[in-house]
Amino acid sequence: MNAPTAPACDGFVLTLSCADQPGIVHAVAGALLEARCNIIDSQQYGNPDTGTFFMRVAVETAMTFTLLREHLDAVAAEFELNWQLHRAGAPVRTLILASKAAHCINDLLFLQRSGTLPIEIPAIVSNHRDLEPLAQFYSIPFYYIPVTLETKAQAEAALMELVEALDVELVVLARYMQVLSDELCKSLPGRVINIHHSFLPSFKGAKPYHQAHARGVKIIGATAHYVTAALDEGPIIEQEVIRVDHGHSVEKFVAMGRAVEARTLAQAVQWHAEHRVLLDGTRTVVFD
Amino acid sequence: MNAPTAPACDGFVLTLSCADQPGIVHAVAGALLEARCNIIDSQQYGNPDTGTFFMRVAVETAMTFTLLREHLDAVAAEFELNWQLHRAGAPVRTLILASKAAHCINDLLFLQRSGTLPIEIPAIVSNHRDLEPLAQFYSIPFYYIPVTLETKAQAEAALMELVEALDVELVVLARYMQVLSDELCKSLPGRVINIHHSFLPSFKGAKPYHQAHARGVKIIGATAHYVTAALDEGPIIEQEVIRVDHGHSVEKFVAMGRAVEARTLAQAVQWHAEHRVLLDGTRTVVFD
Amino acid sequence: MNAPTAPACDGFVLTLSCADQPGIVHAVAGALLEARCNIIDSQQYGNPDTGTFFMRVAVETAMTFTLLREHLDAVAAEFELNWQLHRAGAPVRTLILASKAAHCINDLLFLQRSGTLPIEIPAIVSNHRDLEPLAQFYSIPFYYIPVTLETKAQAEAALMELVEALDVELVVLARYMQVLSDELCKSLPGRVINIHHSFLPSFKGAKPYHQAHARGVKIIGATAHYVTAALDEGPIIEQEVIRVDHGHSVEKFVAMGRAVEARTLAQAVQWHAEHRVLLDGTRTVVFD
Amino acid sequence: MNAPTAPACDGFVLTLSCADQPGIVHAVAGALLEARCNIIDSQQYGNPDTGTFFMRVAVETAMTFTLLREHLDAVAAEFELNWQLHRAGAPVRTLILASKAAHCINDLLFLQRSGTLPIEIPAIVSNHRDLEPLAQFYSIPFYYIPVTLETKAQAEAALMELVEALDVELVVLARYMQVLSDELCKSLPGRVINIHHSFLPSFKGAKPYHQAHARGVKIIGATAHYVTAALDEGPIIEQEVIRVDHGHSVEKFVAMGRAVEARTLAQAVQWHAEHRVLLDGTRTVVFD
Repeated sequence: MNAPTAPACDGFVLTLSCADQPGIVHAVAGALLEARCNIIDSQQYGNPDTGTFFMRVAVETAMTFTLLREHLDAVAAEFELNWQLHRAGAPVRTLILASKAAHCINDLLFLQRSGTLPIEIPAIVSNHRDLEPLAQFYSIPFYYIPVTLETKAQAEAALMELVEALDVELVVLARYMQVLSDELCKSLPGRVINIHHSFLPSFKGAKPYHQAHARGVKIIGATAHYVTAALDEGPIIEQEVIRVDHGHSVEKFVAMGRAVEARTLAQAVQWHAEHRVLLDGTRTVVFD
Repeated sequence: MNAPTAPACDGFVLTLSCADQPGIVHAVAGALLEARCNIIDSQQYGNPDTGTFFMRVAVETAMTFTLLREHLDAVAAEFELNWQLHRAGAPVRTLILASKAAHCINDLLFLQRSGTLPIEIPAIVSNHRDLEPLAQFYSIPFYYIPVTLETKAQAEAALMELVEALDVELVVLARYMQVLSDELCKSLPGRVINIHHSFLPSFKGAKPYHQAHARGVKIIGATAHYVTAALDEGPIIEQEVIRVDHGHSVEKFVAMGRAVEARTLAQAVQWHAEHRVLLDGTRTVVFD
Repeated sequence: MNAPTAPACDGFVLTLSCADQPGIVHAVAGALLEARCNIIDSQQYGNPDTGTFFMRVAVETAMTFTLLREHLDAVAAEFELNWQLHRAGAPVRTLILASKAAHCINDLLFLQRSGTLPIEIPAIVSNHRDLEPLAQFYSIPFYYIPVTLETKAQAEAALMELVEALDVELVVLARYMQVLSDELCKSLPGRVINIHHSFLPSFKGAKPYHQAHARGVKIIGATAHYVTAALDEGPIIEQEVIRVDHGHSVEKFVAMGRAVEARTLAQAVQWHAEHRVLLDGTRTVVFD
Repeated sequence: MNAPTAPACDGFVLTLSCADQPGIVHAVAGALLEARCNIIDSQQYGNPDTGTFFMRVAVETAMTFTLLREHLDAVAAEFELNWQLHRAGAPVRTLILASKAAHCINDLLFLQRSGTLPIEIPAIVSNHRDLEPLAQFYSIPFYYIPVTLETKAQAEAALMELVEALDVELVVLARYMQVLSDELCKSLPGRVINIHHSFLPSFKGAKPYHQAHARGVKIIGATAHYVTAALDEGPIIEQEVIRVDHGHSVEKFVAMGRAVEARTLAQAVQWHAEHRVLLDGTRTVVFD
């Protein structure tokens, strides 16, 4: 499979949040109008509890990225926007971390190569060698960084070096079976996505399918979330579920769950890479 | 059950469509800003195939309904808007037509009385007397208008008289087992919602559950749509499905389907009454 | 709405559990064959973890209930069956407890009257008077039993009296906002069904929608379970979910959740009343 | 990725259908008991419309496959069973046909290699060369058999030769963009599974996502079915759906649909390979 030709990158995506106040939409729309932007898509949300306003606008314009950025500075300053401008469709540089399980990374690689996920993957990192052939098939550099109690700090340092050297914007934990240190979590806020194999907040921690089976639930699920220092407590991006019944063993739960995990993670990465996810404290705003 | 007190009606909902063109959002946002409107919610969509732009904005303002309407006239004229201004939460006057089956109307009545559906029901019309006690329980006038081949025209005339006399804005066919005449359909465009007991366009016409059972499908569904002269071809507002298996009889399909029909119709009525559904040719835009 | 004529009760449902061992199915099938039973439906499950075998068989026969019971005694004794024989379709005598919220009880009453739920409802009990008109509409005796900290023991005594006097087989807590005492729970094992308005084990206890909203989940749900002394820990019968997003307020969660609660509870009651739910320790076997 | 070690094949799966009549279950259970079979799982279904009885029993026994087959001959003859005995978990020899689209075959190959799908894949056939690298990665022989109007008969002959030479039990059309001839369909009844990219019977034939988009449906789906001479009319094995909205373009429908197609097909192949699907005229019985 060859990568499809990248779509012509003639558009931009503006995301912003700020204190809610009259005139924001009018001001932003006015600034975009001045820049002769054609609005392709626009979504907004005001959180009444926190008084925060969120907006995502996709536009097309003949103006360059740099000029548009400068042009928007004035309105950004006036409304004290927390804002970012992105080239639409520009692939987000994504580092994938995995261990032995292949189901999540296999989907991510396939969807990236198919053109569904607007990411590029400069490297795959694993604490095991099992996934190296898969990385080779997709011609992606594979870094084997084993982790033991003794080498954990050293391994994380190597990881951060890669993140910097490769200009990584997003880190995806595709069933990476190591807990990241608080320090690492804090140094990449809103830039690390994990997949937890339960319908959080049910069944945090280890062996969630075993916990779910013991409890006798009738539906299991998976949760993709941003990683924070508090384990399995980060802002949720996406959740998916699947129905189970008494006849399913724990092993069947695990097998059924793999498909749910893979597509929940892929969906979260897609939304993130399309700049559809904005952080709202411990929650997320998803403009899907 | 008593009706809950109506919420304070201090807001308005503006819906509009027009030819897509630069500056619409800026102009509308500007006009609303001038009217000191606080934007509570705003959604927009441009159909790239037809070049039509759609928008729904919910606002709060101290301005009166009439003044706001007048104030918006200028921008409406400039952009040739097809637009409507509604009082937020003001109940939509809804006539319910039903026959013998009670499941859809029972849900509508309950949800209306609970305050979930922002409608008021000045009358229930049926071609049978079975549902009269239910109407009485909810203290809603019940009109028995039987329909035979000979009296159909007369019955429809009586129906239209009620629509006018009662200032009816929306007609809901809650498993009303009569096909409306083309004439009637055309006189109430976008104002009649029907529930079809199949996942359209599968199984149009009569006995859809029997058709579905014979075909051996694994999922059945229901479709709420606006009524047009072409039977079961009107713009779809909402669809819902439920999983079935080989062990379910046709009768079981029917029983399972009732719950799906009821909630699909209720959802469509709710969205319509909240002014979230805009017609886009043979399709709908639903700002949910 | 009048109750439909009860279906001719010419069938029986046998449910059983026992230690798993060779020959059970052959023996049971043999005993049923001798009784000239026509097997309409049969399902079985062996729990490999506990070594327990479960079976549900629906049959038709000319033999009377009493004779069939006696006839099955031999095989029951041989395999030390924990077993029950039921008349198929015979309505299960069900006491409904509710407080002020009407959504769950409204569905139960409607589905009972429509013939979907094979239950009969000799009484409704509530600690408030709000639901009395609804009970009257369905011509069901309504008992107002208020509960305060001081009168709780007395109220539960009155409740148990009703259970006995009315020959109640099943108690359904249809959003009854009182926690039953351990004693009451223990005296009706596997005979009290509760609806919890969250996807257990997430968000146990009070205000689960508020908890869910604060956590920023993307899916909410409801759980119908048998009541045990441990709050919200009883064996789960059924769970249902619905997708939410960042734009939904807590109040919207509550409103959306009502529909999910009502249908989850109704499904659980239906399966129980059709003798499809067997207890397997802290889990349930559901032969749907 | 290496194939996991095959599980010890100590079990058997018996599937059967016959005219419904008293004593079948007892007789089959008796025959299995004599063979000292431990019943692991058993499911049955009697179709009341056609009077046909279906059964699937999974057993463990020390008896060999051949001996058990012989042992069951007597009961099979007595009840005129249409029956098959399978080694539990023995991989079903499966030929995959595909064209250019990789999403379905990629999932099948991954799931097979992961041990989820109990199939082995002696060859992949395609009328294009695009998927050859993927076949090589999984070390599966790839046969390029181009098809034109002139060479169609010849291509199908080559296909049938492969089916025979490779001892193929199941043919899977994983988005293979050629319609099989009636002759080929008839020569492999119940042994060819196709994935159609719509929720059948909606949108038969070409470009179903375009049809669905034009109709304005709110849910799209995929259908896995056995191939018969009548296009898109074969017995349905599995269907899955996904919600769409007005904002989704046809291209987005196509992209979203790929995931649904892949998992619907994989599920159907899994059930078939686990001998859970029995043909019931134009419908299927699925003992999942």
